[in-house]
Amino acid sequence: MTKGIKIATIGGGSSYTPELVEGFIKRYSELPVRELWLVDVEAGREKLEIVGQLAKRMIEKSGLPIEVHLTLDRKAALKDADFVTTQFRVGLLDARAKDERIPMKYGVLGQETNGPGGLFKGLRTIPVILDICHDMEELCPNAWLINFTNPAGMVTEAVLRYSNINKVVGLCNVPIGMEMGIAKLLDVEHSRVRIDFAGLNHMVYGLDVYVDGVSVKDEVINLLTDPNNSSFVKNIQGQGWEPSFIKALDVLTCPYHMYYYKTREMLEKDLKNFENGETRAEVVQKLEKDLFELYKDPNLDIKPPQLEKRGGAYYSDAAVRLITSIYNDKRDIQPVNTRNNGAIASLPDDSAVEVSCVITKEGPKPISVGDLPVAVRGLVQQIKSFERVAAEAAVTGDYDKAVLALTINPLVASDKLAKQIVDEMLEAHKEHLPQFFKVVEA
Amino acid sequence: MTKGIKIATIGGGSSYTPELVEGFIKRYSELPVRELWLVDVEAGREKLEIVGQLAKRMIEKSGLPIEVHLTLDRKAALKDADFVTTQFRVGLLDARAKDERIPMKYGVLGQETNGPGGLFKGLRTIPVILDICHDMEELCPNAWLINFTNPAGMVTEAVLRYSNINKVVGLCNVPIGMEMGIAKLLDVEHSRVRIDFAGLNHMVYGLDVYVDGVSVKDEVINLLTDPNNSSFVKNIQGQGWEPSFIKALDVLTCPYHMYYYKTREMLEKDLKNFENGETRAEVVQKLEKDLFELYKDPNLDIKPPQLEKRGGAYYSDAAVRLITSIYNDKRDIQPVNTRNNGAIASLPDDSAVEVSCVITKEGPKPISVGDLPVAVRGLVQQIKSFERVAAEAAVTGDYDKAVLALTINPLVASDKLAKQIVDEMLEAHKEHLPQFFKVVEA
Amino acid sequence: MTKGIKIATIGGGSSYTPELVEGFIKRYSELPVRELWLVDVEAGREKLEIVGQLAKRMIEKSGLPIEVHLTLDRKAALKDADFVTTQFRVGLLDARAKDERIPMKYGVLGQETNGPGGLFKGLRTIPVILDICHDMEELCPNAWLINFTNPAGMVTEAVLRYSNINKVVGLCNVPIGMEMGIAKLLDVEHSRVRIDFAGLNHMVYGLDVYVDGVSVKDEVINLLTDPNNSSFVKNIQGQGWEPSFIKALDVLTCPYHMYYYKTREMLEKDLKNFENGETRAEVVQKLEKDLFELYKDPNLDIKPPQLEKRGGAYYSDAAVRLITSIYNDKRDIQPVNTRNNGAIASLPDDSAVEVSCVITKEGPKPISVGDLPVAVRGLVQQIKSFERVAAEAAVTGDYDKAVLALTINPLVASDKLAKQIVDEMLEAHKEHLPQFFKVVEA
Amino acid sequence: MTKGIKIATIGGGSSYTPELVEGFIKRYSELPVRELWLVDVEAGREKLEIVGQLAKRMIEKSGLPIEVHLTLDRKAALKDADFVTTQFRVGLLDARAKDERIPMKYGVLGQETNGPGGLFKGLRTIPVILDICHDMEELCPNAWLINFTNPAGMVTEAVLRYSNINKVVGLCNVPIGMEMGIAKLLDVEHSRVRIDFAGLNHMVYGLDVYVDGVSVKDEVINLLTDPNNSSFVKNIQGQGWEPSFIKALDVLTCPYHMYYYKTREMLEKDLKNFENGETRAEVVQKLEKDLFELYKDPNLDIKPPQLEKRGGAYYSDAAVRLITSIYNDKRDIQPVNTRNNGAIASLPDDSAVEVSCVITKEGPKPISVGDLPVAVRGLVQQIKSFERVAAEAAVTGDYDKAVLALTINPLVASDKLAKQIVDEMLEAHKEHLPQFFKVVEA
Ligand SMILES: [Mn+2]
Ligand SMILES: [Mn+2]
Ligand SMILES: [Mn+2]
Ligand SMILES: [Mn+2]
Repeated sequence: MTKGIKIATIGGGSSYTPELVEGFIKRYSELPVRELWLVDVEAGREKLEIVGQLAKRMIEKSGLPIEVHLTLDRKAALKDADFVTTQFRVGLLDARAKDERIPMKYGVLGQETNGPGGLFKGLRTIPVILDICHDMEELCPNAWLINFTNPAGMVTEAVLRYSNINKVVGLCNVPIGMEMGIAKLLDVEHSRVRIDFAGLNHMVYGLDVYVDGVSVKDEVINLLTDPNNSSFVKNIQGQGWEPSFIKALDVLTCPYHMYYYKTREMLEKDLKNFENGETRAEVVQKLEKDLFELYKDPNLDIKPPQLEKRGGAYYSDAAVRLITSIYNDKRDIQPVNTRNNGAIASLPDDSAVEVSCVITKEGPKPISVGDLPVAVRGLVQQIKSFERVAAEAAVTGDYDKAVLALTINPLVASDKLAKQIVDEMLEAHKEHLPQFFKVVEA
Repeated sequence: MTKGIKIATIGGGSSYTPELVEGFIKRYSELPVRELWLVDVEAGREKLEIVGQLAKRMIEKSGLPIEVHLTLDRKAALKDADFVTTQFRVGLLDARAKDERIPMKYGVLGQETNGPGGLFKGLRTIPVILDICHDMEELCPNAWLINFTNPAGMVTEAVLRYSNINKVVGLCNVPIGMEMGIAKLLDVEHSRVRIDFAGLNHMVYGLDVYVDGVSVKDEVINLLTDPNNSSFVKNIQGQGWEPSFIKALDVLTCPYHMYYYKTREMLEKDLKNFENGETRAEVVQKLEKDLFELYKDPNLDIKPPQLEKRGGAYYSDAAVRLITSIYNDKRDIQPVNTRNNGAIASLPDDSAVEVSCVITKEGPKPISVGDLPVAVRGLVQQIKSFERVAAEAAVTGDYDKAVLALTINPLVASDKLAKQIVDEMLEAHKEHLPQFFKVVEA
Repeated sequence: MTKGIKIATIGGGSSYTPELVEGFIKRYSELPVRELWLVDVEAGREKLEIVGQLAKRMIEKSGLPIEVHLTLDRKAALKDADFVTTQFRVGLLDARAKDERIPMKYGVLGQETNGPGGLFKGLRTIPVILDICHDMEELCPNAWLINFTNPAGMVTEAVLRYSNINKVVGLCNVPIGMEMGIAKLLDVEHSRVRIDFAGLNHMVYGLDVYVDGVSVKDEVINLLTDPNNSSFVKNIQGQGWEPSFIKALDVLTCPYHMYYYKTREMLEKDLKNFENGETRAEVVQKLEKDLFELYKDPNLDIKPPQLEKRGGAYYSDAAVRLITSIYNDKRDIQPVNTRNNGAIASLPDDSAVEVSCVITKEGPKPISVGDLPVAVRGLVQQIKSFERVAAEAAVTGDYDKAVLALTINPLVASDKLAKQIVDEMLEAHKEHLPQFFKVVEA
Repeated sequence: MTKGIKIATIGGGSSYTPELVEGFIKRYSELPVRELWLVDVEAGREKLEIVGQLAKRMIEKSGLPIEVHLTLDRKAALKDADFVTTQFRVGLLDARAKDERIPMKYGVLGQETNGPGGLFKGLRTIPVILDICHDMEELCPNAWLINFTNPAGMVTEAVLRYSNINKVVGLCNVPIGMEMGIAKLLDVEHSRVRIDFAGLNHMVYGLDVYVDGVSVKDEVINLLTDPNNSSFVKNIQGQGWEPSFIKALDVLTCPYHMYYYKTREMLEKDLKNFENGETRAEVVQKLEKDLFELYKDPNLDIKPPQLEKRGGAYYSDAAVRLITSIYNDKRDIQPVNTRNNGAIASLPDDSAVEVSCVITKEGPKPISVGDLPVAVRGLVQQIKSFERVAAEAAVTGDYDKAVLALTINPLVASDKLAKQIVDEMLEAHKEHLPQFFKVVEA
C-alpha cells in the first residue's frame, strides 16, 4: 500500500456509487485513495458511464488526487488492488422482481435475503463471487474483499467455505440503522449509543444497548413497549411489536425479524402489494430510474440527497468506515459479517456470523458473546442451516439441495411448495444459473 | 426392590392401561411385579373403576401373584414405588379439543405436542408433574419416573430443569413405529432393523438404519423416493415426501415432521376437518367411549384388539420394555428422552433429547451422535427453544413468556397471532392454569 | 463375508499369537474363521515359523476347519481380509530397550506408550501403519483394522487423521484388567462388574463402577483407601495411592496413571532398575526367549499357561471378543479406542479416545460421558496434545515437532532435555526413522 | 460517580502504592479521583503509615484535589467506592518465604502462583477476597474489583464461582512486559506493538504479534531463535529456549512458562539458590526493606526510581490504565483476567481466562480466539484444573482437595510428595488457614 490505496468496486455502475465516492472524499485524510476502479459488466455499461462521470465530477470538485477508472475489464481493476468492494446484482433488478413475484404466486414471501428470493439471489451471485475470489488469489492476494452484495450472510459463508480468500468481510447497514433508531428513540446523539450485536446477517439481535457505556436496555425495552410511543416506534420499527413478545424476548430485534415473527402479517401486506402490482423491485426500479436521470446532469457534482431514500443509505458509508479502520488499525468496534471463531456458541467456528468486532489491520476480531438467549437460538440456527444448504446448492448446482434449502426455510416450510417454487424459478433465472443446467446440456 | 416390584401408574384410568397390564403379564418372568397401583383423580373415578376391574380380570386370568390397587390417593400409590409411570391428561379430552380448535380459529395448526396445543398441554401438565416429583422425593426417592404424558419432550425438560428428580425417562411410540414401518418397507422382521435415532420428542430423525447391523440407509432412501412405492410409503408415512427433499435431507423423518415440512398442506387438511367438525380430539373421544364400553364387559379378560387403533399402540409396551431393561440391567439399545450429556452437539448438556440409549440399571446412557446434519440442526434447535421457553412459562406463570413461546413456534411465527391465541386459550383453560391467574386473584 | 471370515494378523510372529488362536478356537461357533493369515517381516521369519507351527497344532487339535497361512507377503494376507489385526513391533524388543534406556540416561522415564519411549515407538510405527492402511484401501476396503500395537492411542489418532481408513479400533487390555481387579477387590464374579470408562489409551479413568448394574463407586473408593486393604490394593494397583488423593479424585485410575501421579517414585524405581541393568525390555526379552523355547516343543498344542505372565494377557482375547461383537452386531459394551464424536467434552470430535462403546456391526458407538471431572481434564488434554504433535511429527518427519512433542510431555517438561533425548534417539533408531533423514540424504 | 471517583486500595501499605499514586496523578485529567483510601490490617499499620505519608506528599506536590485516607477500617474504605483494588499479601513476605522454602525441601519448585506456593497463597488469600466481596455487595455493589493479588488467576476464578460480585478483573504485568520485550527486540516503540494474548494468568501465550497492525510473528520467532540474538533474548526471556521448541510451538511464551517447559533447569537453579539461602522471598524482603527506608524520607515526594526493580513494575500502572478505560468507556484492547464466555474454546464459559479484551464501561469483553494451538491446550487445561480444585479447597477447607490440587500440579506430579508438602505447609501457615482447622477445634 506504499503508493496510495487502490480500490476496485465490482458493480461500479450501481446507484450507490456516489455515496461510496462521497465517503472516500470525506475520509481522504485518513484513507488516501489513489485509484478508484469502477468495474461493471457489458449489460451495465450505460449505468457505469453515467455514474462514473458523476464520480469524476465529485472528485474533481474535491480537488483530491484520486484517479477514477471506468472499465469492463475486471482483471485490470483487481490487479494489485488493496480493497475490493462488491455491490453487483446478477440479472439486475429484473431478476429481483422475479425473486419477489414468483414465490408470491405460491402464497409465500419472496424476501430477497433470507427467504426464497434470497435463495435465488444467492444461487446467481455465489458463483460470480467465487470467480472474483479466484481472480483475487492471483491478482491481489493480499487485498480485502468487502462484500455488500446480498444475501450478504450466505455470500460470506460461501467465500469462507468454498474459496481460498480469508480476508473477507460482509457488510450491512441494518446494525447502524438500529443504533440510529435507538438514538432517536432516546433522543441522544448516535455517537453516544453502542449496541452489542450478535446473530446473522438480516437476523441480528441487539443483546445489550449502552449510552455513554452504561446499559440502558431495560429503558429501551420499556420505551419500545410503551403504548404512548407506538407511533414513533412504528416509524423506526415498522409495524411495531406486541409488548409481551418484546418484553419476554428481552433483546432488540432488527427490521428483517418481522418476516419471521410476523410472517402472516407481512405476507398479507406483500400479497396486497403484489395484487396491486407493486413489489419492492418495482418501487426500486422506479427510484433507480429517477436517480440515474439525476446523475446524468452534467452540473451535478455531489451525492444527490434523493439517494438516501433508496433504501441502502449508510451502506457505502459503512464500507468506507470499515476500510478506514482496517487501513489505520483503528481497533474500533463495528458490527460486520465474519468468521465466527467461537464468538457465538452453538454456531460452527468456520461459519459467517454478524457480530460486533474490533476492527484491526488484520481484519475484524469478533467479541465473544457466549450463548445466545434461549429464545433466539432456534431461529438463528435455522437461518444458518438455510444459508449453508443454499450455499452448497449454489456451488454444486444440486437441484435436490435447492429444494431442501427452501423446504427448511421458515417462510416456506413445505416440500411441495419448495419444489414448485424451485422449478419455476430455475426456469425463470436459467440464464444466470448455468450450474443447474449442466446435465441438460450434456 | 427385595419384595417384588411396586409400580405406580398415575392416570391409571386411561384407556391405555390394558396394554400396560398385558405388558407386565407377558414379561413377568423377567419383571416380577408384586403391586400395581392405578391412581387417578376424582374426575376420572368412573374410568378408573372400569379399567381397573378389567386389569384385575386380566391378572386373574394370568394366574400371576400381582396385586392391583385402585386409588385416588396418589401418596399411598407413590409410597415406596420402584417405578412411577405417568399417562394422565389434565382436563381430559375436552381440553385437547380446545387445544386443537382454538388455534384453528386463527388459521394455525393446533398440534398437541410441539405446536400451540402442545404449549397449553404443557402449561397444564408441568405443574402437576413437578408436584408428583415433589412427592416422589419424599415417598420414593429411588424410583424411576417413566413419563409418557405429552408433550413428553417439554415435560422431560421441565423435570430435568425444575425438579430434584434425576431418574426420569420420557417415552414415545414414534421411534418404534418408524422402525416397524421401515421393516415393512424392506419386508424383513422388525427385530432385524435398528435405527440410530437423534433429535427431540416428535422431532426425531433416523440418522442411519441397519438390517442385521449393516447400513441400508441408501436403499431405504431410494425406496422412500421411488414413485413405484408411493402408495405404500404414504401408508407408513402419511402424505409422502417430495423425493428431492428426502434425498437431499438424507435422514429418516418421523410422522410429526409433516407439521414442519408440510405446514401448508397439514393446515389445509386440518382446516377442512375443522370445518367439518372433526378434530383429532373428537375422533379420539369417540374411540375412547367405544373402548370403555368394551372394557365394561365382565367377560372381557384380555386387552381388546380394538385398542391398537387408538393411536398410542406400543406405548405401554415400550414402557414395560424400558422398565424391564432398567430392572435387569439389560444394556440393550432403546430410543428414549433423557438428559443430553453431550450426545447431540449444539444442544445443552442438561436438556432433554430423544436419542438411542443403552438402557442400564442406572438408566439410559445416550450414544454420542456428534453434530446433527446441517439441514436439520435449525428446526431441532427451534423446537428446543420453544420447549424451554414454554417450560419456563409453565413454571412461572409468566404471560409474556407464554406469548414468546408461541411467537417463536414455527407453526405460529407471529407475535400478534400468538397473543390472540394465548389470550383465548388462557381463558378457556383457566381452571387448569392457576399459575397464570395468581395476580388477578391478588 | 460369505465364505467364512478371513483374518490377517500383521506381526503374526508375536509371542501373543497363541492367545489369539485360542480365542478364535473358543469362539468359533459365533465367529466362523475360515482363514487366519499370520504375516511377518523378514527379520521375524524364524519366530513366525515357530509360533505358526504351534498355531497349526492348536487348530488341528481343535478339529476346526480353520486354515492357517504363514507368509512374509503382506499384500497376499490383506487381500479380501475381513479383519486385520496389528500387533507388530518395528525394531523388535531391541528398539524397546533403547526407548527405555536412552531417556533414563537423562534422568527421565522412558515409558513406552505416553512417554518418551512412546514417542519413538510412535515415530517408528505410524508410517508402517499408514502404509498398511494404504494397502487396505486397495486390497480390503471393507475390512476392520483392529490395532493393538502400542502406543495404541497415538496410532489410532494417526489412522483417523492421516489415512482414509475409518474402520479402525484401538485395543488395550488395561480396562479389562481394571474390571478384573475391582471384581477381585469386591470378591464378585468379573461378569457382574461394569465400569464406565473414559479418557485416552493408558490414560483411562473409571468414572463409575457397577455390580449387577448398581453403582458401588463409593464402596470401591472406600476399599481402595482403607489401610486394612493396602497390601491387596498394592497387588492390583501397584504401589497404592494416597487415600486423600483418591478420595478427592473420586474416579478410578489405571495402572499407567502412576507415571503421572507418582512421577518421582516411578522414576526412582526405574532408575534403580536401570542401574542394575534391568529395564522392562530386558525382562520381556528374557520372557519371550523362554516362551519361544516352549513354543518349539512339537508336542505343545495349547496356549502355554506361562504366556499369561507376559504382561499382555487378555489382549488377544479382548481382540477376539471385539471381532465377535462386530461380526455378530452384538451391541454389548466394550471399552475401546475410537473416534470421539462428542462423547467426551473438550476433546475434538475427530480425535481418538478410549471410552465405553456399544459394539455394533458398524463398529463401536461411544456412550456420551459429557465433561470429564475437573481434576482429570488437564492431564487427559495434555496427553492428547502430546499424541497429536507426536503423530504429526511421525507423518512429516519434522524434527522440531518431535522436540515439541517431548517438551510438552509431562514426563519430560524441559525443552533442553527434550532436544537431547530426541537427538540421541533419532540416531539410535535411524534405521527405522527414514522420514527424519530425508533431508540429510538429499 | 457524580462527585468524583472514590478508590479503595486494600493492602494500601504495599510498597507498590507509590506507583499507583503516580498513575492516578498522571491520568487525572481523564480519571478525576476525589478520594483514595489506603486500607491495611493491624500488622501492616507501620508500612501503611510510611507509604501513606509518601502518597500524601506526592499528591500535595501535584496540586490535585485528591484526598488520601489511611485506615484500618475496611468497611469505611469500601463504602460507596467506585473501584476497589486489592494488592494485599496475607501473612506478608514471611509467608511467601515458607511457600517457597517448604516445597524446596521436597525437591519441588515453590513457584508462588501456579505451583505449590501458589496453592498456599491461594488458600490464604481466597477467603479474604470472598470476605471483601461480601462487604462490597453491601457497601459498594456497583464498584469494580480490580485484583492484582496473586495467584490472580485462581483468585479471579474463585470470585467468579464463589461470590456474587460479577464486576471483577484480575490484572497482571506479564502481558505488558511481553509486549515491551518484543518492542525492544524489534527496536520499535512499544505503542506500535500489539499481541493477541490468550491463556491463563502466568500461563499466557502470544498467539500473534503485530507492528502497526501487521503480523510480524514469523519475524519475531526467527529473531527469538536466532543464535546471534541469544544474549539479548536471554535478557528479555530468561534462559532462552531451544530454537526447535519455539519454532514448532509457533506462539510466544511468557516468562512463567519456564517453570513448565524447563522444569528441571528451574528446579536446579532454585535448589542452588535455596542451598545458598537465597529464595526470591528473601531477595524481595531485602528490596522492600530498602524501599521503605527510602519512603520514610520526608523530602521524597515522587515514586523513587528504585521501585521499578521491585519486580512488579507496570502493575499499578496497568491498574490505573484499566480503571481509566472502564471509567471512560475507552474500548481499547488490554489483556486481563475475566470470565471466558466462549472466547477460548475448551475452557468453561464461566472460568477466568487471561485474554485480550476490549475495555468498556461495562467491563472487559473478551475477543474470541477459538481453539488454542494443539500443543498448548494441554498445559492450559491442566493449570485450569489445578486452579479450580485449589479454589474449591480454599473455600471448603477440604484437606483431600488440597492434596489433589497439588498432585495434579505439573510441578509436583506425585500424590506422596503432595501429601507431605500439604501436611507441612498447613502446619506452617496454620494461623492463616482457619478453614482447614475447623474440625480440629470442634
Ligand atoms: Mn443488509
Ligand atoms: Mn409420542
Ligand atoms: Mn495397552
Ligand atoms: Mn502476575
